[in-house]
Amino acid sequence: MAQNIYDRPDFFEGYSRLGRSVEGLDGAPEWPALRAMLPDVAGLSIVDLGCGFGWFCHWARSHGATEVLGLDLSEKMLARARAASADEAITYERADLDELSLPRARFDLAYSSLALHYVSDVARLFATIHQALVPGGSFVFSTEHPIYMAPTNPGWSIDAAGRKTWPVDRYLVEGPRRTDWFTKGVLKYHRTVGTTLNRLIEAGFTIGHVEEFRPTDAQIAARPELAEELERPMFLLVQARR
Amino acid sequence: MAQNIYDRPDFFEGYSRLGRSVEGLDGAPEWPALRAMLPDVAGLSIVDLGCGFGWFCHWARSHGATEVLGLDLSEKMLARARAASADEAITYERADLDELSLPRARFDLAYSSLALHYVSDVARLFATIHQALVPGGSFVFSTEHPIYMAPTNPGWSIDAAGRKTWPVDRYLVEGPRRTDWFTKGVLKYHRTVGTTLNRLIEAGFTIGHVEEFRPTDAQIAARPELAEELERPMFLLVQARR
Repeated sequence: MAQNIYDRPDFFEGYSRLGRSVEGLDGAPEWPALRAMLPDVAGLSIVDLGCGFGWFCHWARSHGATEVLGLDLSEKMLARARAASADEAITYERADLDELSLPRARFDLAYSSLALHYVSDVARLFATIHQALVPGGSFVFSTEHPIYMAPTNPGWSIDAAGRKTWPVDRYLVEGPRRTDWFTKGVLKYHRTVGTTLNRLIEAGFTIGHVEEFRPTDAQIAARPELAEELERPMFLLVQARR
Repeated sequence: MAQNIYDRPDFFEGYSRLGRSVEGLDGAPEWPALRAMLPDVAGLSIVDLGCGFGWFCHWARSHGATEVLGLDLSEKMLARARAASADEAITYERADLDELSLPRARFDLAYSSLALHYVSDVARLFATIHQALVPGGSFVFSTEHPIYMAPTNPGWSIDAAGRKTWPVDRYLVEGPRRTDWFTKGVLKYHRTVGTTLNRLIEAGFTIGHVEEFRPTDAQIAARPELAEELERPMFLLVQARR
């Protein structure tokens, strides 16, 4: 069972103040890149794995999705998502991605934003998603990049020449990583890029596009603090097809 | 045109003393992992892009390959490769991978070991390789990992806790990198993992397996200095199919 940090009061309060929580999709710098990897959602049946406050579910409906199933482990996030909408074509359900079951050939698109790094058994999850998609269906997701997650002490360092660097260690040592983020001991699972892609391929997916998030020059001009994102990738974005 | 460092006397002399130059494939720790990604080569027609001293060409012939075309930019390496063998089913030819042409549907397998990071235009090369393979043919290669190649000053650092780390910067800034390796100003081209995979997919390849080289526990037991390879990947290994 995955750790449920999002329902801890200290975590929920901190997370709720993030740009992506307040502004929704437009507060997430990687959203334009992730959006570009999506099919046209008009007429599609969609499952959102780790839906949080439901921002993507709403976006999909406003772009013509027929129905959206939003799944999350956090009761608090689901409660806020349900309170924000009376759209009967969006269903919010509690689910643990490490124990998920989904009906066969039920969805045209599976989507997941920054949830898979909390999942210990992605082979099981990818097989579950694969069988739940119709043939030709898409799986588009973002996850924390392993360069970001691997280190014993993830963080910036300044080298002798004054350059900002991201010291990497333990990249090839996969498994749990504990960090403090709004709360103590947040549990994530480090996997290399190769492992994530190989588990997808073994589940039957065809890899369509792989992106290590780089802010655009326009994004950096508008938000100069994003320039540090050129030094090391924070997010891995993947599009795969059944 | 790619830079020809291998024919510089200082480089050639230094490179010739490496384990992988003296011992051949068994001197390369990533070879077992790369070999595991190869199809059975018996009966196959093979092109080796960056064949060096011809170790792989010989291995393939001794495992039943029908014919092998070994390509390299270095006259010195080709001369030594030719001198080492009278096998008429192996042909060595000089070629610049940035200007390469290959006949259509001519090979069952394209192989390349640690040569692609010298190539500036991989989109062009991948298209050339794709059309040179028969349908169902394989492309298996190793290249320097972008974590290894990205930094302004690639090298180890020791952090405040005494841990060996590999400080990364400029990961999302693709393009030329100049380093000193047996000779001054070796020119390589940094690309993210995503870019390498996307160029393959755009050329028509299906990604079959992606590996960021990790020495096995048995390799580390036999050669303890390999333990540092767990901290950051030096090689990216890819198997793709036409």
